Amino acid sequence: MAAGSGETPLCIACIQMEPIFGDTAGNVERIIRLIDEAADKGARLVVLPELCNTGYVFNSRAEAFALAESIPDGPTVAAWSAAAKKRDLYIVAGIAERAGERLFNSAVMIGPDGYIGTFRKVHLWGDENLYFEPGDLGFPVFPTPFGRIGMMICYDQWFPEAYRTCTLRGADIVCIPTNWVPIPGQDPKREAMANIIAMAAAHTNSIYVAAADRIGTERGQPFIGQSLIVSYTGWPVGGPASSDRQEIVLATVNVSDARRKRRWNDHNQVVRDRRPDQYDNDL
Amino acid sequence: MAAGSGETPLCIACIQMEPIFGDTAGNVERIIRLIDEAADKGARLVVLPELCNTGYVFNSRAEAFALAESIPDGPTVAAWSAAAKKRDLYIVAGIAERAGERLFNSAVMIGPDGYIGTFRKVHLWGDENLYFEPGDLGFPVFPTPFGRIGMMICYDQWFPEAYRTCTLRGADIVCIPTNWVPIPGQDPKREAMANIIAMAAAHTNSIYVAAADRIGTERGQPFIGQSLIVSYTGWPVGGPASSDRQEIVLATVNVSDARRKRRWNDHNQVVRDRRPDQYDNDL
Repeated sequence: MAAGSGETPLCIACIQMEPIFGDTAGNVERIIRLIDEAADKGARLVVLPELCNTGYVFNSRAEAFALAESIPDGPTVAAWSAAAKKRDLYIVAGIAERAGERLFNSAVMIGPDGYIGTFRKVHLWGDENLYFEPGDLGFPVFPTPFGRIGMMICYDQWFPEAYRTCTLRGADIVCIPTNWVPIPGQDPKREAMANIIAMAAAHTNSIYVAAADRIGTERGQPFIGQSLIVSYTGWPVGGPASSDRQEIVLATVNVSDARRKRRWNDHNQVVRDRRPDQYDNDL
Repeated sequence: MAAGSGETPLCIACIQMEPIFGDTAGNVERIIRLIDEAADKGARLVVLPELCNTGYVFNSRAEAFALAESIPDGPTVAAWSAAAKKRDLYIVAGIAERAGERLFNSAVMIGPDGYIGTFRKVHLWGDENLYFEPGDLGFPVFPTPFGRIGMMICYDQWFPEAYRTCTLRGADIVCIPTNWVPIPGQDPKREAMANIIAMAAAHTNSIYVAAADRIGTERGQPFIGQSLIVSYTGWPVGGPASSDRQEIVLATVNVSDARRKRRWNDHNQVVRDRRPDQYDNDL
């Protein structure tokens, strides 16, 4: 891609790893080593799994509360901010957030100059409903030098409205920290439906999607891995990764294409062709 | 499935065929033979391609106007109504509709008792914009003895809002008469992205999707076939068909499951978990 021609090459890394439940300091240390490894391979945007600093399967709200941290003044965000500054890159990572008496299943975005913003998981899955408040920040989109970044977490992507909100707010890339679990009624031997959803959403919104999943089994709950990076065409350009190994999924993409190639012919531009007058009001 | 247990078995057929451009009477006659064949195999709901009575590639609005018919009083709807009555089944089929001076790319739904309703394609593709008015009826959903049926046509399914509108109006099955064409930027040797979209939508809405595509090349425009019937799980239960042969894709499904199995655990029901307060208003 020629410099000065409006192209925006970016190397994205999705780090697929297994947090150790409750070992926040150890997880953060390990995550920083993995960020270093991704940076060594050229990554400028690094996505990490949902709740990657604490683990996922809490047994009580008290346990979740004890492991959660304030944002941005907690130790995890401080450590990730130092890593982002040192390696001159952007990080999107899942974290248990404490805000007064409330807990959120959140993702933070951090850049070379420090903390940028927070997303709070809007659609809570299963027992998360016992520990966390539903997200109350909508779907914020943050500008960076290489494009605009939206976030969602795991079950949020089951709601096409979430992708659309990010897209209509200008997102070029949606980053998804996730802890995908086996879904009722799905054959675990088949491709992950989570990947199919990401592909359809990337294509119908003409955006990049970068989803970093965890692996392993925690307190009896298995996770399915298969992290991936999807192009605006709808096809994976990195991964899907394995279902059970620590991996860094890498892809170098041209962010400009997500915006420019929404125009498919003289008449059609897939995002602008929406017709809200024909959809029901409460969408 | 035991009778009286709330189960609703239904045999769906998607007829993949090649209309001959301009030969409306001949196409309708051939379609009725294919409906008979599907009925012989047990079908109670038969889906046919977009504009299956006229062909797709008009050269002028005058040509489209001359081939279009009034609904429900035109000869095509009359012929399909007779077939539906004779074989005691439901038909969803694409037709060029004339309404005064206006033309629509429409789908009709017809049952054993005759004409039921019309859907007018909301999102027009390419040169359709030169001949047709954009649909103005939203996404109507019609009740039948075996469940509620919504319709969309081809490019409509690129808009998750269309699927959501059908679902929130109670659709159990979305029928899609379509004329899928190769999409810019897609590798024709790969699985059709149209199929991926249908799978993700079926899963995230917990509905059945039945898409009947055409085949062949008309006035230089190729079509890609690959008609399919997708279960509420997101996985095809019929097809995808070939990209180039006339075929009847059949699947017997339990319509009740689409509604009942939206509940995934004690906390989550995938349609009710929507959070419109967190999506942007103009969705």
